[in-house]
Amino acid sequence: MSCVFCDSDGGTVLWRDASLRVVLADEPGYPGFCRVIWNTHVAEFSDLDAPSRAHLMETVAAVERAVRQVMKPGKVNLASLGNQVPHVHWHVIPRYADDAHFPKPIWAAPERDVAEVRINERAALSAGLHDAVVREMQTLAPTAAGGMQ
Amino acid sequence: MSCVFCDSDGGTVLWRDASLRVVLADEPGYPGFCRVIWNTHVAEFSDLDAPSRAHLMETVAAVERAVRQVMKPGKVNLASLGNQVPHVHWHVIPRYADDAHFPKPIWAAPERDVAEVRINERAALSAGLHDAVVREMQTLAPTAAGGMQ
Repeated sequence: MSCVFCDSDGGTVLWRDASLRVVLADEPGYPGFCRVIWNTHVAEFSDLDAPSRAHLMETVAAVERAVRQVMKPGKVNLASLGNQVPHVHWHVIPRYADDAHFPKPIWAAPERDVAEVRINERAALSAGLHDAVVREMQTLAPTAAGGMQ
Repeated sequence: MSCVFCDSDGGTVLWRDASLRVVLADEPGYPGFCRVIWNTHVAEFSDLDAPSRAHLMETVAAVERAVRQVMKPGKVNLASLGNQVPHVHWHVIPRYADDAHFPKPIWAAPERDVAEVRINERAALSAGLHDAVVREMQTLAPTAAGGMQ
């Protein structure tokens, strides 16, 4: 079975280690949308062992901190769905009161159009994510890495 | 500011400790939909400290295991959104190839109608969740509890 997250990075890689990678996604209307993708093909969060989950979720939290610092969102949304790609990956999504779907999830019908200038402003901010993600990942305790650092 | 997760349990409580509770939600068409709700009013996952996040996510994994055992879903969806209720809570959602929205997220437009008999079958299964959640929570290492057990 072909899997997009086995066959490709899934975005611009911001961080990579032996067990996972952090990528900047390319989602229309949502600059700064990041994903944390487990490197091996595992379907469910509970299929991972506890140290792996700890490393994964401390990475998600680090990416969330980077997104908050750089993108200045009103809220962050986190989700691991995998219905179409059953390979563990977390969405880390900066949300704004004036984005296309707020306060609904981004998968709902749009609530409004968003001015291109606003999206461009946020796309410009997202250029700072690489450095912020690396900085936040470097603060993680080695024990959070599941013995893989 | 009034908050539904400060003012109420948010569902039928399946497990409760000093820091969080697990509830069975009442979401039409989605029997077995559980939530893990942090007890104190905190907006973002990264506002919690690392031991609290570890306890929260090991609880989410325990609830996912219980949902998989009892509800036999095709996939589990996890999400922490909080756009409308900015109080950390995780959705743990059993998904089926023939549910109303699969393979889309449950917040998308429905893909199909679901026979009431199928929903009733799943509602009957969900009666087993209380025991399964308690059993799975009792397997957690005390160190995952953030010093609160």
